[in-house]
Amino acid sequence: MSAPPSPPRRAVIIAVGTELLTPFRTDTNSLFITSKLNDFGIEIVAKLIVGDRRAELADAIRENLDRADLLVLTGGLGPTDDDVTRLAVSDALGLPLEEDPGIVERLRLRFARRGMQMPALNLVQAQVLRGAAVLPNPNGTAPGQWVQHGGRLMALLPGPPREMMPMFDAVVAERIAPLAQGARLYRRVLGIAGRFESDVERVAQPVYSKWVAWRPPVSTSILAAPGQIELHLSVRAGSAEEGRATLDRATGELVAVVGTDVYSTDGRSLEHVVGDLLRGRAWRIATAESCTGGLVACRLTDVAGSSDYVERGVVCYSNRAKTELLGVPAEMIQEHGAVSEPVGVAMATGMRGRAHVDIAVATTGIAGPGGGTDQKPVGTVVVAIASPSGSEARRFLFTGGRAQVKFQASQAALNLVRRALEEDTR
Amino acid sequence: MSAPPSPPRRAVIIAVGTELLTPFRTDTNSLFITSKLNDFGIEIVAKLIVGDRRAELADAIRENLDRADLLVLTGGLGPTDDDVTRLAVSDALGLPLEEDPGIVERLRLRFARRGMQMPALNLVQAQVLRGAAVLPNPNGTAPGQWVQHGGRLMALLPGPPREMMPMFDAVVAERIAPLAQGARLYRRVLGIAGRFESDVERVAQPVYSKWVAWRPPVSTSILAAPGQIELHLSVRAGSAEEGRATLDRATGELVAVVGTDVYSTDGRSLEHVVGDLLRGRAWRIATAESCTGGLVACRLTDVAGSSDYVERGVVCYSNRAKTELLGVPAEMIQEHGAVSEPVGVAMATGMRGRAHVDIAVATTGIAGPGGGTDQKPVGTVVVAIASPSGSEARRFLFTGGRAQVKFQASQAALNLVRRALEEDTR
Repeated sequence: MSAPPSPPRRAVIIAVGTELLTPFRTDTNSLFITSKLNDFGIEIVAKLIVGDRRAELADAIRENLDRADLLVLTGGLGPTDDDVTRLAVSDALGLPLEEDPGIVERLRLRFARRGMQMPALNLVQAQVLRGAAVLPNPNGTAPGQWVQHGGRLMALLPGPPREMMPMFDAVVAERIAPLAQGARLYRRVLGIAGRFESDVERVAQPVYSKWVAWRPPVSTSILAAPGQIELHLSVRAGSAEEGRATLDRATGELVAVVGTDVYSTDGRSLEHVVGDLLRGRAWRIATAESCTGGLVACRLTDVAGSSDYVERGVVCYSNRAKTELLGVPAEMIQEHGAVSEPVGVAMATGMRGRAHVDIAVATTGIAGPGGGTDQKPVGTVVVAIASPSGSEARRFLFTGGRAQVKFQASQAALNLVRRALEEDTR
Repeated sequence: MSAPPSPPRRAVIIAVGTELLTPFRTDTNSLFITSKLNDFGIEIVAKLIVGDRRAELADAIRENLDRADLLVLTGGLGPTDDDVTRLAVSDALGLPLEEDPGIVERLRLRFARRGMQMPALNLVQAQVLRGAAVLPNPNGTAPGQWVQHGGRLMALLPGPPREMMPMFDAVVAERIAPLAQGARLYRRVLGIAGRFESDVERVAQPVYSKWVAWRPPVSTSILAAPGQIELHLSVRAGSAEEGRATLDRATGELVAVVGTDVYSTDGRSLEHVVGDLLRGRAWRIATAESCTGGLVACRLTDVAGSSDYVERGVVCYSNRAKTELLGVPAEMIQEHGAVSEPVGVAMATGMRGRAHVDIAVATTGIAGPGGGTDQKPVGTVVVAIASPSGSEARRFLFTGGRAQVKFQASQAALNLVRRALEEDTR
């Protein structure tokens, strides 16, 4: 054990496992670890995925010892020959492995509680690097290890997320937080619907580009998918109050230029925001979906407790269903086509009346890849609502494949509901 | 340019981009690249993610030159100061960069077609490593590069998937396939619903463990999520016929032990299989959903062309909706509870009659986290169908959070429809 280390600034994450080098799996543990380390101002300078090979893993560890002052390894702590992390770290640092009697005892007990004898194989999980602290694993047989060696810190964690996450939380609380001397990263996420990324960027960039000169400076990044934009703000501050005040000011400046297309400033999803607004108004909602095929209802009911305000929904893929379930006149469909503003409005008002709800939302469109025409190409979608203040329809032309069109249409539908509820509340 | 290289066996993939080191994004390009390289028996021995720093990227490239005979780099080919891949490869290999007049001309034309002048910034995208082949990019401004140097192969590809994928496909077809001398990897995916992973493993392991002794040997891996298990088989064979015959034999052995819970042996999703069966029978379907909240309809309509057989669906979250839309007697709900076999069957038969369809499927259950009781804990789900041969209900107790319960319930519903269609066909 060497002298107490200085606060770590740069970290490398190494995921160990040949299965992570197939086309079917990817390392997601590192996103969790990154988020936790970023909180303390620790930057991730590289991520690696290495197979279950002792020599290659030892090489990768050696190469990265100079690159970072904290190395986090996940995986390879099981009892089989494929589990080489302990051995590779021992090789790379020149530290011997020694059997820890406490781990042996805990493993014996763990198996005994299930009426089993500990397989001899599992004894290797009791091998601990000389001087390392043992990290208990309440959710599995693989204990972790925490190593301070030559001015470097190293965490050896198990691969399964449900074992890794609680163990890493404890490492952060007990070993990393005390080194970080109070400064932490504070974050905020703004959700925006109904705008193009370029359009948001055009109005937001002049605002957030000035924040780098603030003390403390605020960093911004945009995550965009068709129909959904997120602005992630973060600031490194000495206290929670300073962090919150800085983010409040930054959020206010963004909302001033992006306007009411910002649906949340606290990370809630659009369906969650809509649900909260419905609950606040004590309104009930019903959905009438054609092109979204149930996605609007499915998103609304993804929110826990949504049975309080979701009354019902219908998916009327056929024209007959539109007429039978919603009372849309067959002649109207004949005259305007199923994808039209009058039919959208008739679906929403029909649903509102039949379901005895306060607000109903309808979608009708062409999700593709087939079914488009010159006048109504694939991606044409009409979204409509009916509420106590009347009905309203909007037409969109979305790009992308079937899944993207369905998602953007559901997003437009939920956003129309949100705006109606917010306007009604004002 | 050095002598023609031998077939590559070991590859390292390096993704370049500081945004890939945040908690919000992960490298997915490497899954596509891995799959394509595995096809030719090329193994991925490591994957790295490095930030936009010239010296660190050059170090990472140098370290991995000895580890692999093929290096694939994605990202960092844009026109800004953050795009350091060209420079870092130049540093690592000691190869100078030279301006390629052909690229300059193509960039000029690309901008001119949009009525714009090429920004001076973009000229750096015309910098090519001495001796490298230029890889055209029809979907963006960043051309790729293919380098043969010192017995090593290196591909420099852009980061955006829609630019990277077609470029890498061309690299594989024109440069890697000719080196691979005929042998390729052939794959098959078996989808299984309605079984636990441990249960599938118990019957499948004795079968597939013998395949390693086959000539050629077949490799197997299991990917499991609650409600959904996939068995991935692969074999390296000298011809498509040999590959297919070997996989046919292996698939037959697995189906013999797993049985009719195998819903597809060609990678089709469960909703796709159900859709194909409906189309084959010329049947139409309707859904009556409570706890799944529209997810069954949404999955069915995720399949292109599903409007041919999806007639309609209802989401009846409230008891009133179950009675009004499906004719479920209020007294029945009172007596048995909304989550019960009689109500499930009444929902399915009510839907079938009202929608005039051949088959209807219903779900009712407790998705959680609230609403559970001692008799009917969270995760209790009843799935029912009604078809020309009568009605049938099954009760399940699923584990996991709200999203997992919804998914497993939708999986059970689609699987019940599949089995009814298959039995009807026999």
